[in-house]
Amino acid sequence: MQERAEATRRAVLAAAAVLFEQHGYVGTSISDVARTSGYTSGAIYFHFGSKEGLAEAVYDAHFAEWPRLVEKWNSLGGPVLERLVGLSLAVAREFRDNVIVRAGNRLSNESRSISTELPKPFVGWISTCTQLLAVAQENGELAPGTDVERAAHVVVASFSGTHTLSDALNNRRHVEQAVVDLWTLLLPGLQASPDPGGCLERAHSLLDRPPAPRAPSPGR
Amino acid sequence: MQERAEATRRAVLAAAAVLFEQHGYVGTSISDVARTSGYTSGAIYFHFGSKEGLAEAVYDAHFAEWPRLVEKWNSLGGPVLERLVGLSLAVAREFRDNVIVRAGNRLSNESRSISTELPKPFVGWISTCTQLLAVAQENGELAPGTDVERAAHVVVASFSGTHTLSDALNNRRHVEQAVVDLWTLLLPGLQASPDPGGCLERAHSLLDRPPAPRAPSPGR
Repeated sequence: MQERAEATRRAVLAAAAVLFEQHGYVGTSISDVARTSGYTSGAIYFHFGSKEGLAEAVYDAHFAEWPRLVEKWNSLGGPVLERLVGLSLAVAREFRDNVIVRAGNRLSNESRSISTELPKPFVGWISTCTQLLAVAQENGELAPGTDVERAAHVVVASFSGTHTLSDALNNRRHVEQAVVDLWTLLLPGLQASPDPGGCLERAHSLLDRPPAPRAPSPGR
Repeated sequence: MQERAEATRRAVLAAAAVLFEQHGYVGTSISDVARTSGYTSGAIYFHFGSKEGLAEAVYDAHFAEWPRLVEKWNSLGGPVLERLVGLSLAVAREFRDNVIVRAGNRLSNESRSISTELPKPFVGWISTCTQLLAVAQENGELAPGTDVERAAHVVVASFSGTHTLSDALNNRRHVEQAVVDLWTLLLPGLQASPDPGGCLERAHSLLDRPPAPRAPSPGR
Protein backbone atom coordinates (compact mmCIF):
# COMPACT_ATOMS: atom_id res chain seq x y z
CA MET A 1 0.00 0.00 0.00
CA GLN A 2 2.78 2.33 1.07
CA GLU A 3 4.72 1.34 -2.04
CA ARG A 4 1.81 1.95 -4.34
CA ALA A 5 1.30 5.41 -2.83
CA GLU A 6 4.96 6.16 -3.42
CA ALA A 7 4.72 4.99 -7.04
CA THR A 8 1.69 7.23 -7.59
CA ARG A 9 3.49 10.18 -6.04
CA ARG A 10 6.50 9.66 -8.27
CA ALA A 11 4.49 9.28 -11.47
CA VAL A 12 2.45 12.41 -10.73
CA LEU A 13 5.62 14.33 -9.86
CA ALA A 14 7.29 13.32 -13.13
CA ALA A 15 4.24 14.35 -15.19
CA ALA A 16 3.97 17.64 -13.29
CA ALA A 17 7.67 18.35 -13.87
CA VAL A 18 7.27 17.91 -17.64
CA LEU A 19 4.29 20.28 -17.67
CA PHE A 20 5.72 22.91 -15.29
CA GLU A 21 8.93 22.90 -17.32
CA GLN A 22 7.06 23.45 -20.60
CA HIS A 23 4.16 25.65 -19.56
CA GLY A 24 5.19 27.19 -16.24
CA TYR A 25 3.24 27.29 -13.01
CA VAL A 26 0.37 29.43 -14.25
CA GLY A 27 0.08 27.53 -17.54
CA THR A 28 -0.31 24.13 -15.85
CA SER A 29 -3.52 22.90 -14.20
CA ILE A 30 -4.20 19.89 -12.00
CA SER A 31 -6.37 18.46 -14.77
CA ASP A 32 -3.43 18.75 -17.20
CA VAL A 33 -1.32 16.79 -14.72
CA ALA A 34 -4.14 14.23 -14.37
CA ARG A 35 -4.32 13.79 -18.15
CA THR A 36 -0.54 13.46 -18.55
CA SER A 37 0.01 11.17 -15.56
CA GLY A 38 -3.06 8.97 -16.02
CA TYR A 39 -4.15 9.55 -12.40
CA THR A 40 -7.37 11.32 -11.37
CA SER A 41 -7.43 14.90 -10.11
CA GLY A 42 -8.80 13.45 -6.86
CA ALA A 43 -5.71 11.27 -6.42
CA ILE A 44 -3.46 14.25 -7.11
CA TYR A 45 -5.24 16.43 -4.54
CA PHE A 46 -5.08 13.54 -2.07
CA HIS A 47 -1.28 13.30 -2.42
CA PHE A 48 -0.31 16.95 -2.86
CA GLY A 49 -3.21 18.96 -1.42
CA SER A 50 -3.18 21.67 -4.10
CA LYS A 51 -1.33 22.93 -7.17
CA GLU A 52 0.92 24.91 -4.81
CA GLY A 53 1.67 21.68 -2.95
CA LEU A 54 2.52 19.94 -6.21
CA ALA A 55 4.81 22.78 -7.28
CA GLU A 56 6.54 22.67 -3.90
CA ALA A 57 7.06 18.92 -4.24
CA VAL A 58 8.66 19.36 -7.69
CA TYR A 59 10.80 22.18 -6.36
CA ASP A 60 11.86 20.05 -3.37
CA ALA A 61 12.65 17.08 -5.63
CA HIS A 62 14.88 19.34 -7.74
CA PHE A 63 16.68 20.52 -4.61
CA ALA A 64 17.07 16.94 -3.37
CA GLU A 65 19.28 16.17 -6.40
CA TRP A 66 22.13 18.32 -5.14
CA PRO A 67 23.35 16.85 -1.83
CA ARG A 68 24.18 13.52 -3.53
CA LEU A 69 26.16 15.30 -6.24
CA VAL A 70 27.93 17.63 -3.80
CA GLU A 71 28.82 14.66 -1.58
CA LYS A 72 30.27 12.76 -4.55
CA TRP A 73 32.51 15.63 -5.61
CA ASN A 74 33.45 16.43 -2.04
CA SER A 75 34.68 12.90 -1.48
CA LEU A 76 36.98 12.79 -4.51
CA GLY A 77 40.06 14.35 -2.95
CA GLY A 78 42.61 16.40 -4.90
CA PRO A 79 42.67 20.17 -5.43
CA VAL A 80 39.39 21.79 -4.39
CA LEU A 81 39.13 24.19 -7.33
CA GLU A 82 39.25 21.25 -9.75
CA ARG A 83 36.42 19.59 -7.85
CA LEU A 84 34.41 22.81 -7.76
CA VAL A 85 34.81 23.17 -11.52
CA GLY A 86 33.91 19.51 -12.04
CA LEU A 87 30.86 19.85 -9.80
CA SER A 88 29.71 22.89 -11.77
CA LEU A 89 29.98 20.93 -15.01
CA ALA A 90 28.04 18.02 -13.48
CA VAL A 91 25.33 20.44 -12.33
CA ALA A 92 25.22 21.96 -15.82
CA ARG A 93 24.57 18.52 -17.27
CA GLU A 94 21.73 17.94 -14.79
CA PHE A 95 20.21 21.27 -15.77
CA ARG A 96 20.45 20.29 -19.41
CA ASP A 97 19.21 16.71 -19.11
CA ASN A 98 17.04 16.27 -15.98
CA VAL A 99 13.43 17.43 -16.30
CA ILE A 100 12.87 17.60 -12.51
CA VAL A 101 15.81 20.01 -12.26
CA ARG A 102 14.65 22.06 -15.23
CA ALA A 103 11.11 22.25 -13.83
CA GLY A 104 12.35 23.19 -10.36
CA ASN A 105 14.48 25.90 -11.91
CA ARG A 106 11.58 27.31 -13.90
CA LEU A 107 9.37 27.31 -10.78
CA SER A 108 12.14 29.11 -8.92
CA ASN A 109 12.32 31.77 -11.65
CA GLU A 110 8.56 32.19 -11.47
CA SER A 111 8.40 32.03 -7.69
CA ARG A 112 6.98 35.53 -7.42
CA SER A 113 3.85 34.25 -9.21
CA ILE A 114 3.40 31.34 -6.80
CA SER A 115 1.51 32.07 -3.63
CA THR A 116 3.34 29.80 -1.16
CA GLU A 117 6.85 30.63 -0.10
CA LEU A 118 9.55 28.60 -1.85
CA PRO A 119 12.96 28.35 -0.19
CA LYS A 120 15.21 31.15 -1.36
CA PRO A 121 17.16 29.86 -4.33
CA PHE A 122 20.93 30.19 -4.29
CA VAL A 123 21.35 30.08 -0.52
CA GLY A 124 22.36 26.42 -0.44
CA TRP A 125 24.77 26.78 -3.34
CA ILE A 126 26.40 29.86 -1.87
CA SER A 127 26.96 27.96 1.36
CA THR A 128 28.38 24.88 -0.44
CA CYS A 129 30.62 27.05 -2.57
CA THR A 130 31.81 29.11 0.42
CA GLN A 131 32.78 25.91 2.26
CA LEU A 132 34.68 24.55 -0.74
CA LEU A 133 36.51 27.83 -1.31
CA ALA A 134 37.40 28.06 2.39
CA VAL A 135 39.13 24.67 2.15
CA ALA A 136 40.81 25.77 -1.09
CA GLN A 137 42.07 28.85 0.75
CA GLU A 138 43.45 26.74 3.63
CA ASN A 139 45.23 24.59 1.04
CA GLY A 140 46.83 27.66 -0.51
CA GLU A 141 44.96 27.23 -3.81
CA LEU A 142 43.43 30.73 -3.85
CA ALA A 143 44.94 34.06 -4.88
CA PRO A 144 46.11 35.97 -1.80
CA GLY A 145 43.46 38.29 -0.39
CA THR A 146 40.49 36.40 -1.85
CA ASP A 147 37.32 37.09 0.14
CA VAL A 148 35.87 33.58 0.16
CA GLU A 149 32.28 34.56 0.77
CA ARG A 150 32.20 37.25 -1.91
CA ALA A 151 33.92 34.93 -4.33
CA ALA A 152 31.26 32.29 -3.63
CA HIS A 153 28.54 34.83 -4.43
CA VAL A 154 30.29 35.68 -7.70
CA VAL A 155 30.69 32.02 -8.68
CA VAL A 156 27.04 31.16 -7.94
CA ALA A 157 25.67 34.30 -9.60
CA SER A 158 27.75 33.98 -12.74
CA PHE A 159 27.07 30.25 -13.00
CA SER A 160 23.34 30.91 -12.67
CA GLY A 161 23.45 33.68 -15.29
CA THR A 162 25.34 31.37 -17.63
CA HIS A 163 22.42 28.94 -17.44
CA THR A 164 19.80 31.62 -17.95
CA LEU A 165 21.59 32.96 -21.01
CA SER A 166 22.22 29.51 -22.41
CA ASP A 167 18.55 28.67 -21.91
CA ALA A 168 17.38 31.87 -23.64
CA LEU A 169 19.81 31.66 -26.55
CA ASN A 170 19.93 27.98 -27.46
CA ASN A 171 17.88 25.96 -24.97
CA ARG A 172 21.10 25.02 -23.09
CA ARG A 173 22.52 23.03 -25.99
CA HIS A 174 25.94 24.68 -25.48
CA VAL A 175 25.74 25.13 -21.71
CA GLU A 176 28.81 23.00 -20.98
CA GLN A 177 31.01 25.10 -23.28
CA ALA A 178 29.54 28.25 -21.71
CA VAL A 179 30.51 27.02 -18.23
CA VAL A 180 34.04 26.28 -19.50
CA ASP A 181 34.24 29.81 -20.95
CA LEU A 182 33.11 31.22 -17.60
CA TRP A 183 35.79 29.37 -15.65
CA THR A 184 38.41 30.37 -18.22
CA LEU A 185 37.80 33.98 -17.18
CA LEU A 186 37.11 33.44 -13.46
CA LEU A 187 39.99 31.11 -12.58
CA PRO A 188 42.84 33.60 -13.23
CA GLY A 189 41.30 35.83 -10.54
CA LEU A 190 40.76 32.93 -8.14
CA GLN A 191 43.84 30.74 -8.46
CA ALA A 192 47.04 31.30 -6.50
CA SER A 193 48.93 30.18 -9.64
CA PRO A 194 46.66 30.92 -12.59
CA ASP A 195 46.28 27.89 -14.86
CA PRO A 196 42.67 27.78 -16.03
CA GLY A 197 43.38 25.39 -18.91
CA GLY A 198 45.03 22.80 -16.67
CA CYS A 199 42.33 23.05 -14.01
CA LEU A 200 39.56 22.62 -16.59
CA GLU A 201 41.30 19.67 -18.18
CA ARG A 202 41.67 17.87 -14.85
CA ALA A 203 38.06 18.69 -13.87
CA HIS A 204 36.85 17.21 -17.16
CA SER A 205 38.83 14.05 -16.65
CA LEU A 206 37.20 13.63 -13.21
CA LEU A 207 33.78 14.26 -14.74
CA ASP A 208 34.09 11.70 -17.48
CA ARG A 209 35.71 9.07 -15.27
CA PRO A 210 33.44 6.05 -14.90
CA PRO A 211 32.17 5.54 -11.34
CA ALA A 212 34.44 3.43 -9.13
CA PRO A 213 33.38 -0.25 -9.15
CA ARG A 214 31.43 -1.28 -6.05
CA ALA A 215 33.38 -3.31 -3.56
CA PRO A 216 32.31 -6.96 -3.82
CA SER A 217 29.93 -8.04 -1.07
CA PRO A 218 31.67 -9.75 1.80
CA GLY A 219 31.54 -13.54 1.56
CA ARG A 220 31.45 -13.69 -2.25
CA MET B 1 -4.09 66.58 -29.21
CA GLN B 2 -0.97 64.67 -30.14
CA GLU B 3 0.68 65.90 -26.95
CA ARG B 4 -2.20 64.85 -24.77
CA ALA B 5 -2.17 61.37 -26.31
CA GLU B 6 1.55 61.14 -25.56
CA ALA B 7 0.97 62.24 -21.94
CA THR B 8 -1.75 59.59 -21.53
CA ARG B 9 0.52 56.93 -23.01
CA ARG B 10 3.32 57.83 -20.65
CA ALA B 11 1.13 57.91 -17.54
CA VAL B 12 -0.41 54.53 -18.38
CA LEU B 13 3.03 53.07 -19.10
CA ALA B 14 4.39 54.27 -15.77
CA ALA B 15 1.43 52.81 -13.85
CA ALA B 16 1.70 49.54 -15.76
CA ALA B 17 5.43 49.35 -15.00
CA VAL B 18 4.81 49.68 -11.26
CA LEU B 19 2.17 46.93 -11.37
CA PHE B 20 4.07 44.55 -13.67
CA GLU B 21 7.15 44.99 -11.50
CA GLN B 22 5.23 44.15 -8.32
CA HIS B 23 2.71 41.57 -9.49
CA GLY B 24 4.10 40.23 -12.77
CA TYR B 25 2.33 39.87 -16.08
CA VAL B 26 -0.26 37.36 -14.97
CA GLY B 27 -0.97 39.17 -11.71
CA THR B 28 -1.75 42.50 -13.39
CA SER B 29 -5.03 43.29 -15.18
CA ILE B 30 -6.00 46.18 -17.41
CA SER B 31 -8.48 47.30 -14.75
CA ASP B 32 -5.64 47.38 -12.17
CA VAL B 33 -3.72 49.65 -14.56
CA ALA B 34 -6.84 51.79 -15.04
CA ARG B 35 -7.25 52.18 -11.28
CA THR B 36 -3.58 53.02 -10.71
CA SER B 37 -3.21 55.38 -13.66
CA GLY B 38 -6.58 57.13 -13.33
CA TYR B 39 -7.41 56.46 -17.00
CA THR B 40 -10.32 54.27 -18.19
CA SER B 41 -9.82 50.72 -19.45
CA GLY B 42 -11.22 51.98 -22.76
CA ALA B 43 -8.46 54.58 -23.06
CA ILE B 44 -5.84 51.93 -22.26
CA TYR B 45 -7.19 49.54 -24.91
CA PHE B 46 -7.32 52.46 -27.36
CA HIS B 47 -3.62 53.19 -26.85
CA PHE B 48 -2.17 49.71 -26.38
CA GLY B 49 -4.69 47.33 -27.94
CA SER B 50 -4.41 44.63 -25.27
CA LYS B 51 -2.55 43.61 -22.12
CA GLU B 52 0.07 41.98 -24.37
CA GLY B 53 0.43 45.29 -26.19
CA LEU B 54 0.89 47.11 -22.90
CA ALA B 55 3.51 44.60 -21.72
CA GLU B 56 5.35 44.97 -25.02
CA ALA B 57 5.33 48.75 -24.65
CA VAL B 58 6.82 48.52 -21.13
CA TYR B 59 9.39 46.02 -22.37
CA ASP B 60 10.27 48.29 -25.31
CA ALA B 61 10.53 51.34 -23.02
CA HIS B 62 12.96 49.40 -20.82
CA PHE B 63 15.05 48.48 -23.86
CA ALA B 64 14.98 52.09 -25.07
CA GLU B 65 16.92 53.18 -21.97
CA TRP B 66 20.09 51.43 -23.08
CA PRO B 67 21.23 53.07 -26.36
CA ARG B 68 21.49 56.47 -24.64
CA LEU B 69 23.57 55.02 -21.83
CA VAL B 70 25.79 52.99 -24.19
CA GLU B 71 26.32 56.04 -26.37
CA LYS B 72 27.33 58.13 -23.36
CA TRP B 73 29.92 55.61 -22.18
CA ASN B 74 31.14 54.97 -25.72
CA SER B 75 31.84 58.65 -26.23
CA LEU B 76 33.97 59.08 -23.10
CA GLY B 77 37.33 58.01 -24.50
CA GLY B 78 40.05 56.34 -22.45
CA PRO B 79 40.63 52.63 -21.90
CA VAL B 80 37.67 50.55 -23.08
CA LEU B 81 37.65 48.14 -20.14
CA GLU B 82 37.21 51.04 -17.73
CA ARG B 83 34.26 52.27 -19.76
CA LEU B 84 32.75 48.78 -19.93
CA VAL B 85 33.03 48.47 -16.15
CA GLY B 86 31.58 51.96 -15.67
CA LEU B 87 28.71 51.19 -18.06
CA SER B 88 27.94 48.00 -16.13
CA LEU B 89 27.78 49.97 -12.88
CA ALA B 90 25.52 52.56 -14.51
CA VAL B 91 23.23 49.78 -15.76
CA ALA B 92 23.19 48.24 -12.27
CA ARG B 93 21.99 51.55 -10.86
CA GLU B 94 19.22 51.72 -13.48
CA PHE B 95 18.14 48.21 -12.55
CA ARG B 96 18.09 49.18 -8.91
CA ASP B 97 16.36 52.56 -9.28
CA ASN B 98 14.30 52.69 -12.51
CA VAL B 99 10.88 51.04 -12.34
CA ILE B 100 10.52 50.81 -16.14
CA VAL B 101 13.77 48.84 -16.27
CA ARG B 102 12.79 46.62 -13.34
CA ALA B 103 9.37 45.95 -14.90
CA GLY B 104 10.89 45.21 -18.32
CA ASN B 105 13.31 42.82 -16.68
CA ARG B 106 10.56 41.00 -14.82
CA LEU B 107 8.51 40.72 -18.03
CA SER B 108 11.58 39.35 -19.77
CA ASN B 109 12.02 36.71 -17.03
CA GLU B 110 8.37 35.77 -17.39
CA SER B 111 8.35 35.94 -21.18
CA ARG B 112 7.48 32.27 -21.49
CA SER B 113 4.13 33.07 -19.84
CA ILE B 114 3.34 35.91 -22.26
CA SER B 115 1.70 34.94 -25.49
CA THR B 116 3.30 37.44 -27.88
CA GLU B 117 6.93 37.10 -28.78
CA LEU B 118 9.25 39.46 -26.93
CA PRO B 119 12.66 40.19 -28.42
CA LYS B 120 15.26 37.75 -27.11
CA PRO B 121 16.89 39.30 -24.10
CA PHE B 122 20.66 39.51 -23.95
CA VAL B 123 21.23 39.71 -27.71
CA GLY B 124 21.70 43.48 -27.76
CA TRP B 125 24.01 43.45 -24.73
CA ILE B 126 26.14 40.65 -26.13
CA SER B 127 26.55 42.63 -29.34
CA THR B 128 27.41 45.87 -27.48
CA CYS B 129 29.86 44.05 -25.26
CA THR B 130 31.48 42.20 -28.18
CA GLN B 131 32.04 45.50 -29.98
CA LEU B 132 33.59 47.13 -26.92
CA LEU B 133 35.85 44.16 -26.25
CA ALA B 134 36.93 44.06 -29.91
CA VAL B 135 38.12 47.68 -29.62
CA ALA B 136 39.80 46.83 -26.31
CA GLN B 137 41.59 43.99 -28.07
CA GLU B 138 42.75 46.27 -30.90
CA ASN B 139 44.09 48.66 -28.25
CA GLY B 140 46.06 45.85 -26.60
CA GLU B 141 44.01 46.00 -23.41
CA LEU B 142 43.01 42.31 -23.40
CA ALA B 143 44.94 39.23 -22.31
CA PRO B 144 46.51 37.53 -25.34
CA GLY B 145 44.31 34.84 -26.86
CA THR B 146 41.03 36.27 -25.52
CA ASP B 147 38.08 35.12 -27.64
CA VAL B 148 36.13 38.37 -27.73
CA GLU B 149 32.75 36.88 -28.51
CA ARG B 150 32.96 34.20 -25.82
CA ALA B 151 34.23 36.74 -23.31
CA ALA B 152 31.22 38.96 -24.15
CA HIS B 153 28.86 36.04 -23.45
CA VAL B 154 30.59 35.45 -20.11
CA VAL B 155 30.40 39.12 -19.13
CA VAL B 156 26.69 39.44 -20.02
CA ALA B 157 25.73 36.12 -18.43
CA SER B 158 27.60 36.74 -15.20
CA PHE B 159 26.36 40.33 -14.99
CA SER B 160 22.79 39.13 -15.47
CA GLY B 161 23.20 36.39 -12.85
CA THR B 162 24.61 38.95 -10.42
CA HIS B 163 21.38 40.92 -10.76
CA THR B 164 19.16 37.88 -10.35
CA LEU B 165 21.00 36.82 -7.22
CA SER B 166 21.05 40.33 -5.81
CA ASP B 167 17.31 40.61 -6.48
CA ALA B 168 16.57 37.28 -4.78
CA LEU B 169 18.81 37.84 -1.76
CA ASN B 170 18.34 41.49 -0.86
CA ASN B 171 16.11 43.19 -3.46
CA ARG B 172 19.25 44.58 -5.20
CA ARG B 173 20.25 46.76 -2.25
CA HIS B 174 23.88 45.65 -2.59
CA VAL B 175 23.91 45.17 -6.37
CA GLU B 176 26.66 47.73 -6.97
CA GLN B 177 29.05 45.97 -4.55
CA ALA B 178 28.13 42.64 -6.17
CA VAL B 179 29.06 44.02 -9.61
CA VAL B 180 32.37 45.27 -8.19
CA ASP B 181 33.03 41.80 -6.72
CA LEU B 182 32.28 40.23 -10.11
CA TRP B 183 34.73 42.48 -11.96
CA THR B 184 37.34 41.86 -9.26
CA LEU B 185 37.34 38.21 -10.31
CA LEU B 186 36.74 38.66 -14.07
CA LEU B 187 39.28 41.38 -14.82
CA PRO B 188 42.43 39.35 -14.05
CA GLY B 189 41.37 36.92 -16.80
CA LEU B 190 40.50 39.72 -19.23
CA GLN B 191 43.20 42.34 -18.79
CA ALA B 192 46.55 42.27 -20.60
CA SER B 193 48.10 43.66 -17.40
CA PRO B 194 45.85 42.57 -14.54
CA ASP B 195 44.92 45.51 -12.30
CA PRO B 196 41.29 45.06 -11.27
CA GLY B 197 41.50 47.53 -8.38
CA GLY B 198 42.85 50.34 -10.56
CA CYS B 199 40.33 49.71 -13.34
CA LEU B 200 37.42 49.70 -10.88
CA GLU B 201 38.64 52.88 -9.23
CA ARG B 202 38.87 54.73 -12.55
CA ALA B 203 35.47 53.38 -13.68
CA HIS B 204 33.90 54.64 -10.47
CA SER B 205 35.42 58.07 -10.91
CA LEU B 206 33.91 58.25 -14.42
CA LEU B 207 30.57 57.13 -13.02
CA ASP B 208 30.38 59.69 -10.29
CA ARG B 209 31.69 62.55 -12.42
CA PRO B 210 29.01 65.24 -12.87
CA PRO B 211 27.81 65.58 -16.48
CA ALA B 212 29.83 68.04 -18.60
CA PRO B 213 28.22 71.53 -18.62
CA ARG B 214 26.27 72.28 -21.78
CA ALA B 215 28.01 74.60 -24.21
CA PRO B 216 26.40 78.09 -24.02
CA SER B 217 23.98 78.77 -26.88
CA PRO B 218 25.57 80.76 -29.72
CA GLY B 219 24.75 84.46 -29.55
CA ARG B 220 24.34 84.58 -25.78
